[in-house]
Amino acid sequence: MFTPTDHAMMRRAINLARRGRFTTAPNPNVGCVIVKDETVIGEGFHYRAGQPHAEVFALRAAGENARGATAYVTLEPCSHYGRTPPCAEALIAADVSRVVCAMVDPNPQVAGRGVTMLRDAGIQVETGLLEADALALNPGFIKRMKTGLPYVQLKLAASLDGKTALANGASQWITGPEARADVQRFRAQSGAILSTSATVLADDPSLNVRWQELGDQTQSDYPQAEVRQPVRVIIDSQNRLQPTQRLFSLPGKVLLARAQADTLAWPEHVSQLVVPVQENGLLDLTALMQALARQDINHLWVEAGAGLAGALVREGLVDEFILYQAPKLMGSDSRGLIDLHGLTAMKDVPALVLNDVRMVGQDIRIRGCIKSSA
Amino acid sequence: MFTPTDHAMMRRAINLARRGRFTTAPNPNVGCVIVKDETVIGEGFHYRAGQPHAEVFALRAAGENARGATAYVTLEPCSHYGRTPPCAEALIAADVSRVVCAMVDPNPQVAGRGVTMLRDAGIQVETGLLEADALALNPGFIKRMKTGLPYVQLKLAASLDGKTALANGASQWITGPEARADVQRFRAQSGAILSTSATVLADDPSLNVRWQELGDQTQSDYPQAEVRQPVRVIIDSQNRLQPTQRLFSLPGKVLLARAQADTLAWPEHVSQLVVPVQENGLLDLTALMQALARQDINHLWVEAGAGLAGALVREGLVDEFILYQAPKLMGSDSRGLIDLHGLTAMKDVPALVLNDVRMVGQDIRIRGCIKSSA
Repeated sequence: MFTPTDHAMMRRAINLARRGRFTTAPNPNVGCVIVKDETVIGEGFHYRAGQPHAEVFALRAAGENARGATAYVTLEPCSHYGRTPPCAEALIAADVSRVVCAMVDPNPQVAGRGVTMLRDAGIQVETGLLEADALALNPGFIKRMKTGLPYVQLKLAASLDGKTALANGASQWITGPEARADVQRFRAQSGAILSTSATVLADDPSLNVRWQELGDQTQSDYPQAEVRQPVRVIIDSQNRLQPTQRLFSLPGKVLLARAQADTLAWPEHVSQLVVPVQENGLLDLTALMQALARQDINHLWVEAGAGLAGALVREGLVDEFILYQAPKLMGSDSRGLIDLHGLTAMKDVPALVLNDVRMVGQDIRIRGCIKSSA
Repeated sequence: MFTPTDHAMMRRAINLARRGRFTTAPNPNVGCVIVKDETVIGEGFHYRAGQPHAEVFALRAAGENARGATAYVTLEPCSHYGRTPPCAEALIAADVSRVVCAMVDPNPQVAGRGVTMLRDAGIQVETGLLEADALALNPGFIKRMKTGLPYVQLKLAASLDGKTALANGASQWITGPEARADVQRFRAQSGAILSTSATVLADDPSLNVRWQELGDQTQSDYPQAEVRQPVRVIIDSQNRLQPTQRLFSLPGKVLLARAQADTLAWPEHVSQLVVPVQENGLLDLTALMQALARQDINHLWVEAGAGLAGALVREGLVDEFILYQAPKLMGSDSRGLIDLHGLTAMKDVPALVLNDVRMVGQDIRIRGCIKSSA
């Protein structure tokens, strides 16, 4: 039912959508291409929350010529008044004759409303073209809309023998500069970076996006002036962090996840988020995730130690593992990758589906997700 | 100086040589192609020790026509009387006019003698065409000839978090059937398989080549009737093994590496090799390797636990690591990959150069060697 032109134009819209991947959070990446007589007459993508949606840019470019055209959109056009008027209305006003959507809105509360609005206006609407690619554009937005939880990427870095630090804590650097630049690009695409006070106290990390380290290709898509710092979320259940920590002197919001707030004089960009404590004395990570989603965080990038990694795995909160393996042997008395205990049968061992294995510089990068039990 | 035809013909000779990879031990893999007027008039490869060398098969096929032809050989033709007459003599007798060798003989005692013999007979000889590929045909033969030690491949299998067994010892199976078939192919190309009595007592492994598991492609190159069992070498410094172990009921030679021989009634295919003991009470692994090389073992495939793996790494005896990583997380109380202790600085961590990273079924296979310090 879809023609080769339909495929090519939706592919073009998806590629356009990706150009917003560093800047649209918490909004989704969306691309739109308007075609008439096999010719592109307008195209656009969503670049930043509060700015116009993809369809608006594309319609502006097409102008009067949009009448009778086909619009390819990677996501069902919105039907509600938010910071901008509904795109479905704009498409109707421009009198396009056909709209092809890669996917419907992931929010079950509004899914299909934009399609209905368009059809009620006599526009031919088709959905599902290159849907898998459209889903991959916005794993965080889609997961939050569907479940009220962010999409969680757990970053791990280890030697070939699965170690993350020597017994004395030495760990700089396990991976090479290319892998560290790759981490910068993942950070830059996330809505928030999650770590722990233990990691902050041990390593004094910046946990920010450093434009200089993003690499030429990314820099050309993402000018330095546009850099958006993901929220740094630090689990600090014992209130161990002090306002004097270097982390707090860097630009960008910080959220301290705590069992109880303290009354220290924190800078304005630092806030405390009180999270329920579980019976085991640890913060309830699912409650934390829900609270982050309520703060419009779609996509969480986790950089922490074996303790938090193990807790996230045990609670089933990891959507994707991103493991950098350095070609090194760190030895049996070095520190392990993930705190998980008490497995007694191979059939109970968590298994992953690997989606991508490649070299990043001298290191191996493995992307995978937990295999759902059949 | 080499023409495209030269390259193509040597490539053909190298591909032929590979067809002997399961059967020539302890001899090297060698291929030969004889060409006249841009046409292949004879070719052959060495198939099994005691049978004719590659050049002989190729010359037989070429017959009288060999006069004035060019012979491409992956290794310098031999100049000495062994189980067969010297190939250099056969090439001279056939009156070829040019011989191209990919590499000279790796044995420093005889290197260049075959070339000299040919040149003295008025034949034009060139060497070094596709030398790297020729070296890769026979890592074991070459290493033994040059150093008096076998080429050692250490096989490791672990989860993504670097674990080889659960705390209770459960480990079957970490890797999938494709990885296990891959191991069978490596075993089949080795001269000997090294393990320990600890592994034999714990897992009761067969440590043999099972033709049924080699896969279609290998089976077609390697008929079941031809299967050669590598020598199984078991380190048993405490004389813990008994003749009743299942290992000894399987076909193929077994060598027990021991500090002292015992007087039990061992089957004829089992022999005891007494190896010096080091100050730390363990067998001297370098002395063991030298003893194996003296028994014409070129290529040693190691399958054992973290203890032997660590000892081989510490003593610098591993030429190549072959690590199968299963997409699993086995947890922090599971058993580690390599016993190595006491590293205190990242700069001292053994680093590897990775030569090949690929998927084998659902598992990742990583091949690498220790990076020599600059």
